[in-house]
Amino acid sequence: MDRLRKIFSAHPNPASDAGDVAFALVKAAAECSYVCTTCADACLEEASSSELRNCIRMNLDCAEICALTATLISRPGEQDRTVLRAQLEACAKACRACAEECGRHGKTMEHCRICAESCRECAEACDAMLKALVS
Amino acid sequence: MDRLRKIFSAHPNPASDAGDVAFALVKAAAECSYVCTTCADACLEEASSSELRNCIRMNLDCAEICALTATLISRPGEQDRTVLRAQLEACAKACRACAEECGRHGKTMEHCRICAESCRECAEACDAMLKALVS
Amino acid sequence: MDRLRKIFSAHPNPASDAGDVAFALVKAAAECSYVCTTCADACLEEASSSELRNCIRMNLDCAEICALTATLISRPGEQDRTVLRAQLEACAKACRACAEECGRHGKTMEHCRICAESCRECAEACDAMLKALVS
Amino acid sequence: MDRLRKIFSAHPNPASDAGDVAFALVKAAAECSYVCTTCADACLEEASSSELRNCIRMNLDCAEICALTATLISRPGEQDRTVLRAQLEACAKACRACAEECGRHGKTMEHCRICAESCRECAEACDAMLKALVS
Repeated sequence: MDRLRKIFSAHPNPASDAGDVAFALVKAAAECSYVCTTCADACLEEASSSELRNCIRMNLDCAEICALTATLISRPGEQDRTVLRAQLEACAKACRACAEECGRHGKTMEHCRICAESCRECAEACDAMLKALVS
Repeated sequence: MDRLRKIFSAHPNPASDAGDVAFALVKAAAECSYVCTTCADACLEEASSSELRNCIRMNLDCAEICALTATLISRPGEQDRTVLRAQLEACAKACRACAEECGRHGKTMEHCRICAESCRECAEACDAMLKALVS
Repeated sequence: MDRLRKIFSAHPNPASDAGDVAFALVKAAAECSYVCTTCADACLEEASSSELRNCIRMNLDCAEICALTATLISRPGEQDRTVLRAQLEACAKACRACAEECGRHGKTMEHCRICAESCRECAEACDAMLKALVS
Repeated sequence: MDRLRKIFSAHPNPASDAGDVAFALVKAAAECSYVCTTCADACLEEASSSELRNCIRMNLDCAEICALTATLISRPGEQDRTVLRAQLEACAKACRACAEECGRHGKTMEHCRICAESCRECAEACDAMLKALVS
Protein backbone atom coordinates (compact mmCIF):
# COMPACT_ATOMS: atom_id res chain seq x y z
CA MET A 1 0.00 0.00 0.00
CA ASP A 2 3.04 2.30 -0.42
CA ARG A 3 1.50 3.93 -3.46
CA LEU A 4 -1.61 4.84 -1.48
CA ARG A 5 0.53 6.76 1.00
CA LYS A 6 2.21 8.56 -1.89
CA ILE A 7 -1.00 9.39 -3.73
CA PHE A 8 -2.53 10.81 -0.54
CA SER A 9 0.41 13.26 -0.48
CA ALA A 10 -0.17 14.10 -4.14
CA HIS A 11 -3.83 15.12 -3.60
CA PRO A 12 -4.21 18.82 -4.52
CA ASN A 13 -6.76 19.74 -1.85
CA PRO A 14 -7.12 17.42 1.16
CA ALA A 15 -9.87 18.35 3.61
CA SER A 16 -7.80 17.65 6.70
CA ASP A 17 -4.23 17.01 7.77
CA ALA A 18 -5.19 13.53 9.03
CA GLY A 19 -3.34 11.86 6.16
CA ASP A 20 -1.37 9.41 8.32
CA VAL A 21 -4.36 8.35 10.38
CA ALA A 22 -6.46 8.00 7.23
CA PHE A 23 -3.78 5.94 5.53
CA ALA A 24 -3.49 3.62 8.54
CA LEU A 25 -7.26 3.16 8.50
CA VAL A 26 -7.47 2.31 4.78
CA LYS A 27 -4.67 -0.21 5.28
CA ALA A 28 -6.35 -1.82 8.29
CA ALA A 29 -9.84 -1.77 6.74
CA ALA A 30 -8.67 -3.19 3.40
CA GLU A 31 -6.84 -6.02 5.16
CA CYS A 32 -9.82 -6.66 7.43
CA SER A 33 -12.22 -6.72 4.49
CA TYR A 34 -10.28 -9.41 2.63
CA VAL A 35 -9.39 -11.37 5.79
CA CYS A 36 -13.12 -11.50 6.69
CA THR A 37 -13.94 -12.66 3.14
CA THR A 38 -11.38 -15.46 3.44
CA CYS A 39 -12.59 -16.37 6.93
CA ALA A 40 -16.19 -16.76 5.71
CA ASP A 41 -14.93 -18.97 2.90
CA ALA A 42 -12.82 -21.03 5.30
CA CYS A 43 -15.77 -21.43 7.71
CA LEU A 44 -17.86 -22.76 4.80
CA GLU A 45 -15.31 -25.55 4.34
CA GLU A 46 -15.22 -26.59 8.01
CA ALA A 47 -16.97 -29.82 9.01
CA SER A 48 -18.92 -27.73 11.51
CA SER A 49 -20.02 -25.18 8.89
CA SER A 50 -23.68 -25.42 9.86
CA GLU A 51 -22.74 -24.23 13.38
CA LEU A 52 -20.77 -21.37 11.91
CA ARG A 53 -23.75 -19.73 10.15
CA ASN A 54 -23.69 -16.59 12.25
CA CYS A 55 -19.92 -16.37 12.01
CA ILE A 56 -20.08 -16.59 8.21
CA ARG A 57 -22.82 -13.96 8.01
CA MET A 58 -20.95 -11.66 10.41
CA ASN A 59 -17.76 -12.10 8.36
CA LEU A 60 -19.58 -11.22 5.14
CA ASP A 61 -21.23 -8.13 6.64
CA CYS A 62 -17.96 -6.98 8.22
CA ALA A 63 -16.07 -7.51 4.94
CA GLU A 64 -18.49 -5.22 3.09
CA ILE A 65 -18.58 -2.55 5.79
CA CYS A 66 -14.77 -2.40 5.97
CA ALA A 67 -14.48 -2.19 2.18
CA LEU A 68 -16.93 0.72 2.13
CA THR A 69 -15.09 2.51 4.94
CA ALA A 70 -11.77 2.15 3.12
CA THR A 71 -13.36 3.60 -0.02
CA LEU A 72 -14.82 6.64 1.76
CA ILE A 73 -11.53 7.35 3.51
CA SER A 74 -9.71 7.07 0.18
CA ARG A 75 -11.36 10.32 -0.91
CA PRO A 76 -9.19 12.99 0.77
CA GLY A 77 -11.33 15.92 -0.44
CA GLU A 78 -14.13 17.67 1.42
CA GLN A 79 -16.80 15.27 2.73
CA ASP A 80 -19.79 15.53 5.04
CA ARG A 81 -18.35 14.93 8.51
CA THR A 82 -21.63 13.75 10.05
CA VAL A 83 -21.88 10.98 7.47
CA LEU A 84 -18.22 10.05 7.83
CA ARG A 85 -18.49 9.82 11.61
CA ALA A 86 -21.63 7.67 11.44
CA GLN A 87 -19.96 5.32 8.97
CA LEU A 88 -16.82 5.05 11.10
CA GLU A 89 -18.96 4.22 14.13
CA ALA A 90 -20.84 1.53 12.20
CA CYS A 91 -17.51 0.10 11.03
CA ALA A 92 -16.02 0.03 14.53
CA LYS A 93 -19.15 -1.75 15.79
CA ALA A 94 -19.08 -4.31 12.97
CA CYS A 95 -15.39 -5.02 13.61
CA ARG A 96 -15.94 -5.45 17.36
CA ALA A 97 -18.95 -7.75 16.83
CA CYS A 98 -17.01 -9.82 14.31
CA ALA A 99 -13.94 -9.97 16.60
CA GLU A 100 -16.17 -11.28 19.37
CA GLU A 101 -17.87 -13.88 17.18
CA CYS A 102 -14.61 -15.07 15.58
CA GLY A 103 -12.88 -14.92 18.96
CA ARG A 104 -15.23 -17.67 20.18
CA HIS A 105 -13.78 -20.09 17.62
CA GLY A 106 -10.22 -18.74 17.70
CA LYS A 107 -8.83 -21.56 19.81
CA THR A 108 -9.95 -24.28 17.44
CA MET A 109 -9.77 -22.43 14.14
CA GLU A 110 -6.69 -20.46 13.20
CA HIS A 111 -8.53 -18.48 10.49
CA CYS A 112 -10.97 -17.17 13.10
CA ARG A 113 -8.10 -16.23 15.41
CA ILE A 114 -6.38 -14.23 12.65
CA CYS A 115 -9.69 -12.64 11.64
CA ALA A 116 -10.50 -11.51 15.19
CA GLU A 117 -7.05 -9.90 15.39
CA SER A 118 -7.57 -8.04 12.11
CA CYS A 119 -11.03 -6.86 13.21
CA ARG A 120 -9.68 -5.48 16.48
CA GLU A 121 -6.96 -3.56 14.68
CA CYS A 122 -9.51 -2.08 12.25
CA ALA A 123 -11.85 -1.06 15.10
CA GLU A 124 -8.96 0.81 16.73
CA ALA A 125 -8.06 2.48 13.44
CA CYS A 126 -11.70 3.67 13.19
CA ASP A 127 -11.51 5.07 16.72
CA ALA A 128 -8.29 6.91 15.85
CA MET A 129 -9.89 8.39 12.74
CA LEU A 130 -12.95 9.48 14.72
CA LYS A 131 -10.63 11.34 17.10
CA ALA A 132 -8.70 12.90 14.21
CA LEU A 133 -11.91 14.20 12.64
CA VAL A 134 -12.79 16.16 15.76
CA SER A 135 -9.59 18.14 15.86
CA MET B 1 -37.78 -6.51 -7.78
CA ASP B 2 -40.73 -8.93 -7.61
CA ARG B 3 -38.41 -11.88 -7.25
CA LEU B 4 -36.75 -10.31 -4.22
CA ARG B 5 -40.11 -10.16 -2.47
CA LYS B 6 -40.71 -13.82 -3.33
CA ILE B 7 -37.28 -15.02 -2.26
CA PHE B 8 -37.64 -13.23 1.09
CA SER B 9 -40.77 -15.38 1.66
CA ALA B 10 -38.83 -18.50 0.68
CA HIS B 11 -36.09 -17.97 3.31
CA PRO B 12 -36.16 -20.90 5.75
CA ASN B 13 -35.28 -18.95 8.89
CA PRO B 14 -35.81 -15.17 8.87
CA ALA B 15 -34.67 -13.35 12.02
CA SER B 16 -37.70 -11.06 12.15
CA ASP B 17 -41.13 -10.62 10.64
CA ALA B 18 -40.11 -7.29 9.14
CA GLY B 19 -40.12 -8.75 5.64
CA ASP B 20 -42.24 -6.00 4.05
CA VAL B 21 -40.30 -3.16 5.61
CA ALA B 22 -37.01 -4.84 4.68
CA PHE B 23 -38.17 -5.36 1.11
CA ALA B 24 -39.24 -1.71 0.80
CA LEU B 25 -35.83 -0.64 2.08
CA VAL B 26 -33.84 -2.81 -0.34
CA LYS B 27 -35.96 -1.45 -3.19
CA ALA B 28 -35.45 2.18 -2.11
CA ALA B 29 -31.74 1.74 -1.34
CA ALA B 30 -31.00 -0.08 -4.59
CA GLU B 31 -32.76 2.63 -6.60
CA CYS B 32 -31.02 5.37 -4.62
CA SER B 33 -27.62 3.73 -5.11
CA TYR B 34 -27.92 3.64 -8.91
CA VAL B 35 -29.66 7.03 -9.13
CA CYS B 36 -26.76 8.58 -7.15
CA THR B 37 -24.24 6.88 -9.45
CA THR B 38 -26.00 8.33 -12.49
CA CYS B 39 -26.29 11.76 -10.86
CA ALA B 40 -22.51 11.85 -10.20
CA ASP B 41 -21.92 10.91 -13.82
CA ALA B 42 -24.38 13.55 -15.04
CA CYS B 43 -22.76 16.23 -12.83
CA LEU B 44 -19.38 15.37 -14.38
CA GLU B 45 -20.80 16.27 -17.80
CA GLU B 46 -22.26 19.61 -16.75
CA ALA B 47 -20.49 22.79 -17.87
CA SER B 48 -20.32 23.72 -14.20
CA SER B 49 -18.77 20.41 -13.15
CA SER B 50 -15.95 22.07 -11.23
CA GLU B 51 -18.53 23.73 -8.97
CA LEU B 52 -20.24 20.39 -8.46
CA ARG B 53 -17.24 18.69 -6.82
CA ASN B 54 -18.87 18.25 -3.47
CA CYS B 55 -22.11 17.10 -5.06
CA ILE B 56 -20.26 14.45 -7.10
CA ARG B 57 -18.34 13.23 -4.05
CA MET B 58 -21.51 13.15 -1.94
CA ASN B 59 -23.30 11.21 -4.71
CA LEU B 60 -20.51 8.65 -4.90
CA ASP B 61 -20.39 8.17 -1.12
CA CYS B 62 -24.17 7.89 -0.89
CA ALA B 63 -24.29 5.39 -3.77
CA GLU B 64 -21.85 3.09 -1.97
CA ILE B 65 -23.53 3.43 1.43
CA CYS B 66 -26.96 2.64 -0.04
CA ALA B 67 -25.61 -0.38 -1.93
CA LEU B 68 -24.08 -1.73 1.28
CA THR B 69 -27.29 -1.18 3.22
CA ALA B 70 -29.32 -3.01 0.59
CA THR B 71 -26.86 -5.92 0.75
CA LEU B 72 -27.03 -6.21 4.56
CA ILE B 73 -30.83 -6.07 4.53
CA SER B 74 -30.89 -8.76 1.83
CA ARG B 75 -29.67 -11.28 4.41
CA PRO B 76 -32.88 -12.19 6.30
CA GLY B 77 -31.12 -14.51 8.78
CA GLU B 78 -29.85 -13.63 12.25
CA GLN B 79 -27.58 -10.57 12.32
CA ASP B 80 -26.04 -8.35 14.98
CA ARG B 81 -28.70 -5.70 15.66
CA THR B 82 -26.23 -3.11 17.01
CA VAL B 83 -24.30 -3.22 13.76
CA LEU B 84 -27.45 -3.15 11.65
CA ARG B 85 -28.82 -0.14 13.52
CA ALA B 86 -25.54 1.77 13.21
CA GLN B 87 -25.41 1.08 9.49
CA LEU B 88 -29.03 2.16 8.99
CA GLU B 89 -28.31 5.40 10.85
CA ALA B 90 -25.25 6.06 8.70
CA CYS B 91 -27.33 5.39 5.58
CA ALA B 92 -30.15 7.71 6.66
CA LYS B 93 -27.58 10.45 7.35
CA ALA B 94 -25.87 9.97 3.99
CA CYS B 95 -29.21 10.11 2.17
CA ARG B 96 -30.27 13.27 3.99
CA ALA B 97 -26.93 14.99 3.34
CA CYS B 98 -27.07 14.01 -0.32
CA ALA B 99 -30.72 15.14 -0.61
CA GLU B 100 -29.70 18.51 0.80
CA GLU B 101 -26.70 18.91 -1.50
CA CYS B 102 -28.60 17.79 -4.61
CA GLY B 103 -31.62 19.81 -3.54
CA ARG B 104 -29.51 22.98 -3.93
CA HIS B 105 -29.14 22.30 -7.67
CA GLY B 106 -32.56 20.73 -8.19
CA LYS B 107 -34.10 23.78 -9.80
CA THR B 108 -31.49 24.02 -12.52
CA MET B 109 -30.59 20.35 -12.91
CA GLU B 110 -33.31 17.74 -13.30
CA HIS B 111 -30.93 14.87 -12.39
CA CYS B 112 -30.21 16.49 -9.02
CA ARG B 113 -33.93 16.98 -8.42
CA ILE B 114 -34.66 13.30 -9.09
CA CYS B 115 -31.68 12.24 -6.98
CA ALA B 116 -32.76 14.33 -3.99
CA GLU B 117 -36.21 12.70 -4.19
CA SER B 118 -34.73 9.22 -4.25
CA CYS B 119 -32.44 10.03 -1.30
CA ARG B 120 -35.34 11.30 0.80
CA GLU B 121 -37.33 8.14 0.11
CA CYS B 122 -34.38 5.95 1.09
CA ALA B 123 -33.81 7.91 4.31
CA GLU B 124 -37.44 7.32 5.25
CA ALA B 125 -37.15 3.62 4.45
CA CYS B 126 -34.11 3.46 6.79
CA ASP B 127 -36.14 5.15 9.54
CA ALA B 128 -38.97 2.64 9.06
CA MET B 129 -36.52 -0.26 9.27
CA LEU B 130 -34.95 1.17 12.43
CA LYS B 131 -38.42 1.27 14.00
CA ALA B 132 -39.19 -2.28 12.85
CA LEU B 133 -35.95 -3.58 14.41
CA VAL B 134 -36.97 -2.32 17.84
CA SER B 135 -40.26 -4.19 17.98
CA MET C 1 -36.64 1.85 -10.37
CA ASP C 2 -38.82 4.46 -12.12
CA ARG C 3 -36.50 7.24 -11.03
CA LEU C 4 -33.54 5.50 -12.64
CA ARG C 5 -35.34 5.54 -15.99
CA LYS C 6 -36.07 9.24 -15.52
CA ILE C 7 -32.54 10.18 -14.45
CA PHE C 8 -31.08 8.34 -17.46
CA SER C 9 -33.18 10.69 -19.63
CA ALA C 10 -31.91 13.69 -17.66
CA HIS C 11 -28.23 12.90 -18.31
CA PRO C 12 -26.69 15.80 -20.30
CA ASN C 13 -24.34 13.72 -22.46
CA PRO C 14 -25.05 10.00 -22.79
CA ALA C 15 -22.47 8.03 -24.79
CA SER C 16 -25.04 5.96 -26.65
CA ASP C 17 -28.74 5.80 -27.37
CA ALA C 18 -28.99 2.43 -25.61
CA GLY C 19 -30.86 3.96 -22.67
CA ASP C 20 -33.70 1.42 -22.64
CA VAL C 21 -31.42 -1.59 -22.91
CA ALA C 22 -29.12 -0.14 -20.24
CA PHE C 23 -32.05 0.54 -17.93
CA ALA C 24 -33.36 -3.02 -18.36
CA LEU C 25 -29.90 -4.35 -17.52
CA VAL C 26 -29.48 -2.27 -14.35
CA LYS C 27 -32.93 -3.43 -13.22
CA ALA C 28 -32.16 -7.09 -13.90
CA ALA C 29 -28.64 -6.94 -12.45
CA ALA C 30 -29.74 -5.11 -9.30
CA GLU C 31 -32.50 -7.64 -8.68
CA CYS C 32 -30.14 -10.53 -9.41
CA SER C 33 -27.53 -9.14 -7.05
CA TYR C 34 -29.89 -8.95 -4.09
CA VAL C 35 -31.68 -12.20 -4.95
CA CYS C 36 -28.30 -13.99 -4.99
CA THR C 37 -27.40 -12.41 -1.64
CA THR C 38 -30.67 -13.67 -0.15
CA CYS C 39 -30.22 -17.10 -1.73
CA ALA C 40 -26.75 -17.49 -0.15
CA ASP C 41 -28.23 -16.51 3.20
CA ALA C 42 -31.14 -18.95 2.77
CA CYS C 43 -28.74 -21.78 1.79
CA LEU C 44 -26.76 -21.12 5.00
CA GLU C 45 -29.92 -21.83 6.99
CA GLU C 46 -30.77 -25.10 5.24
CA ALA C 47 -30.15 -28.36 7.09
CA SER C 48 -28.02 -29.39 4.12
CA SER C 49 -25.92 -26.20 4.19
CA SER C 50 -22.64 -28.10 4.17
CA GLU C 51 -23.61 -29.63 0.81
CA LEU C 52 -24.50 -26.19 -0.50
CA ARG C 53 -20.98 -24.73 -0.11
CA ASN C 54 -20.39 -24.25 -3.81
CA CYS C 55 -23.89 -22.85 -4.28
CA ILE C 56 -23.32 -20.31 -1.50
CA ARG C 57 -19.95 -19.28 -2.92
CA MET C 58 -21.36 -19.02 -6.44
CA ASN C 59 -24.26 -16.91 -5.12
CA LEU C 60 -21.89 -14.55 -3.33
CA ASP C 61 -19.63 -14.15 -6.37
CA CYS C 62 -22.60 -13.62 -8.70
CA ALA C 63 -24.12 -11.05 -6.32
CA GLU C 64 -20.94 -8.96 -6.39
CA ILE C 65 -20.44 -9.26 -10.14
CA CYS C 66 -24.04 -8.19 -10.85
CA ALA C 67 -23.78 -5.25 -8.45
CA LEU C 68 -20.62 -4.07 -10.20
CA THR C 69 -22.21 -4.44 -13.64
CA ALA C 70 -25.24 -2.41 -12.56
CA THR C 71 -22.91 0.32 -11.26
CA LEU C 72 -20.88 0.53 -14.48
CA ILE C 73 -24.04 0.67 -16.61
CA SER C 74 -25.41 3.42 -14.35
CA ARG C 75 -22.78 5.80 -15.75
CA PRO C 76 -24.29 6.88 -19.09
CA GLY C 77 -21.26 9.01 -20.09
CA GLU C 78 -18.34 7.96 -22.27
CA GLN C 79 -16.66 4.74 -21.10
CA ASP C 80 -14.04 2.38 -22.49
CA ARG C 81 -16.04 -0.08 -24.63
CA THR C 82 -13.43 -2.86 -24.40
CA VAL C 83 -13.66 -2.84 -20.61
CA LEU C 84 -17.44 -2.65 -20.63
CA ARG C 85 -17.73 -5.59 -23.03
CA ALA C 86 -15.34 -7.72 -20.96
CA GLN C 87 -17.28 -6.95 -17.80
CA LEU C 88 -20.61 -7.76 -19.46
CA GLU C 89 -19.20 -11.08 -20.67
CA ALA C 90 -17.94 -11.93 -17.17
CA CYS C 91 -21.36 -11.04 -15.75
CA ALA C 92 -23.24 -13.17 -18.29
CA LYS C 93 -20.93 -16.11 -17.47
CA ALA C 94 -21.37 -15.68 -13.72
CA CYS C 95 -25.16 -15.53 -14.10
CA ARG C 96 -25.24 -18.65 -16.28
CA ALA C 97 -22.95 -20.58 -13.89
CA CYS C 98 -25.08 -19.53 -10.92
CA ALA C 99 -28.32 -20.39 -12.76
CA GLU C 100 -26.92 -23.85 -13.43
CA GLU C 101 -25.78 -24.41 -9.84
CA CYS C 102 -29.02 -23.10 -8.31
CA GLY C 103 -31.04 -24.94 -10.94
CA ARG C 104 -29.74 -28.23 -9.51
CA HIS C 105 -31.50 -27.49 -6.21
CA GLY C 106 -34.50 -25.68 -7.66
CA LYS C 107 -36.88 -28.61 -7.26
CA THR C 108 -36.30 -28.94 -3.53
CA MET C 109 -35.53 -25.34 -2.64
CA GLU C 110 -37.78 -22.53 -3.81
CA HIS C 111 -35.13 -19.84 -3.15
CA CYS C 112 -32.74 -21.60 -5.56
CA ARG C 113 -35.50 -21.84 -8.18
CA ILE C 114 -36.22 -18.10 -7.95
CA CYS C 115 -32.50 -17.30 -7.99
CA ALA C 116 -31.86 -19.38 -11.12
CA GLU C 117 -34.70 -17.52 -12.84
CA SER C 118 -33.27 -14.13 -11.89
CA CYS C 119 -29.76 -15.16 -13.05
CA ARG C 120 -31.07 -16.27 -16.45
CA GLU C 121 -32.88 -12.97 -16.92
CA CYS C 122 -29.74 -11.01 -16.03
CA ALA C 123 -27.59 -13.09 -18.41
CA GLU C 124 -30.01 -12.25 -21.23
CA ALA C 125 -29.96 -8.56 -20.31
CA CYS C 126 -26.13 -8.67 -20.53
CA ASP C 127 -26.36 -10.27 -23.98
CA ALA C 128 -28.80 -7.57 -25.12
CA MET C 129 -26.45 -4.84 -23.86
CA LEU C 130 -23.48 -6.45 -25.61
CA LYS C 131 -25.46 -6.33 -28.86
CA ALA C 132 -26.49 -2.72 -28.26
CA LEU C 133 -22.87 -1.68 -27.71
CA VAL C 134 -21.85 -2.96 -31.15
CA SER C 135 -24.34 -0.87 -33.07
CA MET D 1 -1.62 -7.45 4.36
CA ASP D 2 0.47 -9.96 6.37
CA ARG D 3 -2.62 -11.42 7.97
CA LEU D 4 -4.14 -12.15 4.57
CA ARG D 5 -1.11 -14.26 3.68
CA LYS D 6 -1.48 -16.12 6.97
CA ILE D 7 -5.22 -16.68 6.68
CA PHE D 8 -4.79 -18.06 3.15
CA SER D 9 -2.51 -20.72 4.69
CA ALA D 10 -5.11 -21.44 7.38
CA HIS D 11 -7.88 -22.20 4.85
CA PRO D 12 -8.97 -25.85 5.29
CA ASN D 13 -9.64 -26.63 1.64
CA PRO D 14 -8.06 -24.35 -0.99
CA ALA D 15 -9.02 -25.16 -4.59
CA SER D 16 -5.51 -24.66 -5.94
CA ASP D 17 -1.92 -24.28 -4.82
CA ALA D 18 -1.77 -20.80 -6.31
CA GLY D 19 -1.72 -19.20 -2.87
CA ASP D 20 1.27 -16.93 -3.48
CA VAL D 21 0.04 -15.71 -6.85
CA ALA D 22 -3.44 -15.16 -5.42
CA PHE D 23 -2.04 -13.24 -2.46
CA ALA D 24 0.07 -11.03 -4.74
CA LEU D 25 -3.04 -10.30 -6.81
CA VAL D 26 -5.23 -9.35 -3.85
CA LYS D 27 -2.48 -7.04 -2.61
CA ALA D 28 -2.07 -5.38 -6.01
CA ALA D 29 -5.81 -5.16 -6.71
CA ALA D 30 -6.63 -3.75 -3.27
CA GLU D 31 -3.94 -1.09 -3.62
CA CYS D 32 -5.06 -0.30 -7.17
CA SER D 33 -8.68 -0.01 -6.08
CA TYR D 34 -7.95 2.59 -3.39
CA VAL D 35 -5.30 4.39 -5.46
CA CYS D 36 -7.86 4.77 -8.29
CA THR D 37 -10.45 6.07 -5.81
CA THR D 38 -7.98 8.67 -4.55
CA CYS D 39 -6.93 9.58 -8.10
CA ALA D 40 -10.58 10.25 -9.09
CA ASP D 41 -10.96 12.44 -6.02
CA ALA D 42 -7.71 14.28 -6.78
CA CYS D 43 -8.77 14.84 -10.42
CA LEU D 44 -12.03 16.38 -9.17
CA GLU D 45 -9.99 19.01 -7.31
CA GLU D 46 -7.78 19.95 -10.24
CA ALA D 47 -8.41 23.27 -11.99
CA SER D 48 -8.76 21.28 -15.19
CA SER D 49 -11.32 18.85 -13.70
CA SER D 50 -13.77 19.33 -16.57
CA GLU D 51 -11.12 18.02 -18.98
CA LEU D 52 -10.51 15.05 -16.71
CA ARG D 53 -14.06 13.65 -17.00
CA ASN D 54 -13.05 10.48 -18.76
CA CYS D 55 -10.10 9.99 -16.43
CA ILE D 56 -12.37 10.32 -13.37
CA ARG D 57 -14.92 7.89 -14.81
CA MET D 58 -12.20 5.40 -15.79
CA ASN D 59 -10.69 5.68 -12.28
CA LEU D 60 -14.06 4.98 -10.65
CA ASP D 61 -14.80 1.99 -12.89
CA CYS D 62 -11.30 0.57 -12.39
CA ALA D 63 -11.56 1.03 -8.61
CA GLU D 64 -14.75 -1.03 -8.49
CA ILE D 65 -13.49 -3.74 -10.84
CA CYS D 66 -10.26 -4.16 -8.84
CA ALA D 67 -12.17 -4.32 -5.55
CA LEU D 68 -14.42 -7.04 -6.95
CA THR D 69 -11.45 -9.01 -8.28
CA ALA D 70 -9.71 -8.86 -4.90
CA THR D 71 -12.90 -10.13 -3.23
CA LEU D 72 -13.31 -13.09 -5.60
CA ILE D 73 -9.65 -14.06 -5.20
CA SER D 74 -10.02 -13.84 -1.41
CA ARG D 75 -12.22 -16.96 -1.52
CA PRO D 76 -9.68 -19.80 -1.75
CA GLY D 77 -12.33 -22.55 -1.99
CA GLU D 78 -13.71 -24.14 -5.17
CA GLN D 79 -14.99 -21.59 -7.70
CA ASP D 80 -16.17 -21.67 -11.30
CA ARG D 81 -12.97 -21.25 -13.35
CA THR D 82 -14.75 -19.88 -16.42
CA VAL D 83 -16.21 -17.05 -14.37
CA LEU D 84 -12.92 -16.38 -12.60
CA ARG D 85 -11.00 -16.22 -15.87
CA ALA D 86 -13.55 -13.85 -17.44
CA GLN D 87 -13.38 -11.56 -14.42
CA LEU D 88 -9.57 -11.55 -14.39
CA GLU D 89 -9.57 -10.65 -18.08
CA ALA D 90 -12.03 -7.80 -17.47
CA CYS D 91 -9.85 -6.56 -14.61
CA ALA D 92 -6.64 -6.69 -16.65
CA LYS D 93 -8.38 -4.72 -19.43
CA ALA D 94 -9.73 -2.11 -17.00
CA CYS D 95 -6.29 -1.68 -15.44
CA ARG D 96 -4.58 -1.28 -18.83
CA ALA D 97 -7.21 1.22 -20.04
CA CYS D 98 -6.87 3.21 -16.82
CA ALA D 99 -3.06 3.09 -16.97
CA GLU D 100 -3.23 4.49 -20.50
CA GLU D 101 -5.68 7.26 -19.58
CA CYS D 102 -3.81 8.25 -16.41
CA GLY D 103 -0.49 7.90 -18.23
CA ARG D 104 -1.54 10.77 -20.50
CA HIS D 105 -1.62 13.15 -17.51
CA GLY D 106 1.25 11.55 -15.60
CA LYS D 107 3.80 14.21 -16.50
CA THR D 108 1.74 17.06 -15.13
CA MET D 109 -0.12 15.29 -12.33
CA GLU D 110 1.76 13.13 -9.86
CA HIS D 111 -1.44 11.34 -8.71
CA CYS D 112 -2.09 10.14 -12.27
CA ARG D 113 1.52 8.96 -12.57
CA ILE D 114 1.23 6.90 -9.36
CA CYS D 115 -2.17 5.56 -10.43
CA ALA D 116 -0.92 4.42 -13.84
CA GLU D 117 1.92 2.57 -12.09
CA SER D 118 -0.48 0.82 -9.72
CA CYS D 119 -2.80 -0.14 -12.60
CA ARG D 120 0.05 -1.66 -14.59
CA GLU D 121 1.14 -3.73 -11.60
CA CYS D 122 -2.41 -4.99 -11.06
CA ALA D 123 -2.81 -5.90 -14.75
CA GLU D 124 0.36 -7.99 -14.51
CA ALA D 125 -0.87 -9.68 -11.34
CA CYS D 126 -4.09 -10.59 -13.19
CA ASP D 127 -2.04 -12.08 -16.03
CA ALA D 128 0.00 -14.13 -13.55
CA MET D 129 -3.18 -15.41 -11.91
CA LEU D 130 -4.66 -16.35 -15.30
CA LYS D 131 -1.53 -18.40 -16.00
CA ALA D 132 -1.66 -20.03 -12.56
CA LEU D 133 -5.30 -21.06 -13.10
CA VAL D 134 -4.40 -23.01 -16.24
CA SER D 135 -1.84 -25.24 -14.57
